[in-house]
Amino acid sequence: MLFKNIDLIDEHLQDLKDMYVGVEGDTITYIGNQMPADTARYGRVYDGKNKILMSGFYNAHGHTPMTLLRGYAENHNLQDWLYHYIFPFEAKITDADCYWGCMLGIAEMMASGTVSVSDMYGHMQASIKAYIESGFKVNLCNGLMDFDETPFSQNRNHLEECNCFKLYHGAENGRIKIDKSCHSVYTSNRKTVEELAIYAKQTDSIVQIHLSETQTEVQECLEKYGVTPVQYFQDTGLLDNFVVAAHCVWLNDQDMDILAKNNVVAVHNCMSNLKLASGVADIPKMQEKGIRIAIGTDGCSSNNNLDMFEEIKLCAVLNKGVRLDPSAITTKDALAFATQNGAFAQRRYDCGSVKVGNKADLIVIDADCPSMQPVYSAVNNVVYAANGKNVEMTMIDGKIVYEKGRFFTIDVERAIYEVNQAKRRILGELQK
Amino acid sequence: MLFKNIDLIDEHLQDLKDMYVGVEGDTITYIGNQMPADTARYGRVYDGKNKILMSGFYNAHGHTPMTLLRGYAENHNLQDWLYHYIFPFEAKITDADCYWGCMLGIAEMMASGTVSVSDMYGHMQASIKAYIESGFKVNLCNGLMDFDETPFSQNRNHLEECNCFKLYHGAENGRIKIDKSCHSVYTSNRKTVEELAIYAKQTDSIVQIHLSETQTEVQECLEKYGVTPVQYFQDTGLLDNFVVAAHCVWLNDQDMDILAKNNVVAVHNCMSNLKLASGVADIPKMQEKGIRIAIGTDGCSSNNNLDMFEEIKLCAVLNKGVRLDPSAITTKDALAFATQNGAFAQRRYDCGSVKVGNKADLIVIDADCPSMQPVYSAVNNVVYAANGKNVEMTMIDGKIVYEKGRFFTIDVERAIYEVNQAKRRILGELQK
Repeated sequence: MLFKNIDLIDEHLQDLKDMYVGVEGDTITYIGNQMPADTARYGRVYDGKNKILMSGFYNAHGHTPMTLLRGYAENHNLQDWLYHYIFPFEAKITDADCYWGCMLGIAEMMASGTVSVSDMYGHMQASIKAYIESGFKVNLCNGLMDFDETPFSQNRNHLEECNCFKLYHGAENGRIKIDKSCHSVYTSNRKTVEELAIYAKQTDSIVQIHLSETQTEVQECLEKYGVTPVQYFQDTGLLDNFVVAAHCVWLNDQDMDILAKNNVVAVHNCMSNLKLASGVADIPKMQEKGIRIAIGTDGCSSNNNLDMFEEIKLCAVLNKGVRLDPSAITTKDALAFATQNGAFAQRRYDCGSVKVGNKADLIVIDADCPSMQPVYSAVNNVVYAANGKNVEMTMIDGKIVYEKGRFFTIDVERAIYEVNQAKRRILGELQK
Repeated sequence: MLFKNIDLIDEHLQDLKDMYVGVEGDTITYIGNQMPADTARYGRVYDGKNKILMSGFYNAHGHTPMTLLRGYAENHNLQDWLYHYIFPFEAKITDADCYWGCMLGIAEMMASGTVSVSDMYGHMQASIKAYIESGFKVNLCNGLMDFDETPFSQNRNHLEECNCFKLYHGAENGRIKIDKSCHSVYTSNRKTVEELAIYAKQTDSIVQIHLSETQTEVQECLEKYGVTPVQYFQDTGLLDNFVVAAHCVWLNDQDMDILAKNNVVAVHNCMSNLKLASGVADIPKMQEKGIRIAIGTDGCSSNNNLDMFEEIKLCAVLNKGVRLDPSAITTKDALAFATQNGAFAQRRYDCGSVKVGNKADLIVIDADCPSMQPVYSAVNNVVYAANGKNVEMTMIDGKIVYEKGRFFTIDVERAIYEVNQAKRRILGELQK
């Protein structure tokens, strides 16, 4: 593929007009403002008039199969929502439900410009099947929980992660990755977390966690352990690993210093945090402390969609409004969080920016519509004016998976049908 | 037009499955769960499979021609942004620029499900031409300013409003309305506001104002007049009129009581308030006080789009997250603000809900896509999952103005071209 005369948001997140970008195999091999010499080697030539080319998004925290629960339970706080609505519903989800829920979520993400997700969910093999078939990228984990103090070596979620790690980690030329995980301080116990810390180190794994999402979580942790969740995870040795921590809403100064020192990636899930009344993470302060920020949609039942454009816009305006600082979080910052930093959170060091040698994870945005005109700055319009439905094409590892409403790897009609069947069946079972 | 087998969000904002809705002329004449007897009288039959029919949105506060400035000045607070960027740019805008900027904004609103706007901007006749030609509804005013204490009777903006009122108020069968206005406390003087209050009463006009948008505005008003902006406008007699007040971010308890007592409609511009670092309006408290809330996009240079779906979602989640109350502002509340209450703010009492006898200001939302499935509740999905690009069709006064990417009353290609010409010319003039 050769993109010609296209507006490019480059690796420095600068707007370049009328550029040429060549893709060979799964890799970006040419970027320039001149037509490359041998155009034939690129195959299809893509006319970039009124289009913007940029890196796809790396959704750094999600629960993809939760499309099954979109709009299911509203107006509850996190704890009520989880224990009284989400967990009972999820107990009824089968592997097949999970596969189709995951497929529907992948389709939604592809169509709105996302190329990869850090996904925490059960039924891992069902999800892996969906990720392999669809061509999407994933860092999958299970969300380790331990309510009953089962020995770590017998913990079901851990065993499932281990099994999938052996079978699939690095599969599809690195497209599929299996991370380790701990769901949260409030669903785990100390001994398990300590053993997980050691195990993750042995396998050199990324560890995904939920961290300091609500005030209640922090208060209960202080009461039970005498320390904040951040200190708890530090004390257990977990932070000696490559940790990706979702939410990070209720951090004190010392917590932030610990995260910075341990190079923890903090994932901002601003829409979910508002909707579940968890609060507003202090991203500018985390930036000052040198913490790397990524962006996630969270599960779509606390959002209720998987559109990263909504997240980058909200990220760019929310801290401005809440902290009364119009210079907080620039549009470039927000875009970097959702691309370069997201790829970093998945240890995909050759992804997340449009750069020769990087993987061709690219999206094309249509600017030829009223809501995207005029263009003073492509970056400003992408962050503030666009939404996922401006995406015209999504390419992952050099393969077009979505273009103008068509999905090339997913039977979306079937996915919608199957998800609705699952919804009806589960609602019926819950009513009994 | 007869919509058949369509999911309907009715006048009580309840989801009804497989409904029939008939439109004759500009009016909704049939709603039922059975096919009406004489189908021929409705003309075209619209297959509603996987579609949602609802009222269009009434954008209760905007500056439509400001599409000309989309993405022009970023990361400034309101005062800097206005005085150093927006006002100098606006001084260069011609009538023709305004006409095309307005057309582009109307196209964007139509395509994202809005049917009517309360618009405050100069060059009124140019805008009126755009509104008449496009078939869109408007309550237009100028944003009265008075820096130099010109007598009210000679104030240019006032004279323009008067002239347009005589020529156009009630035109196009009530589609075009001319309101009165006062831009804000900080751009007016007391004597002018007092005279405006009397004039608005004499002409029984709606008065559009900006009110208590920033902390600075309130502080300066306290210093200058010894009272809050709300008290200032009450003291001048302005609140004896039908007042529509944008922003209302910095209100104390007494301010809220005054607004409630005077039946002032408060317009929530949540995205603009975040982006310009103005703050977060306390909508739940205003609701408790009995203040009627509507929703506006504000001008698209402080947003930077005119998509009311973004506003209703942000409205429904923002106060939850900031006030840590997951039950604050339900999806039904947010939808009522943007439809029924918006129509009320424009004194369009036969608009804003799908009801027999009401004007046929209707939109069709496509639910047959990954991001809108499954549907546990159409209202929840419309508020939390949809965006403007899910709109498949927009009908105003019974006429289809937009359907599946096609605009029937606007030459969008020309509008984009002309707006870009204006942008280049004005940037050139400003650089001199």
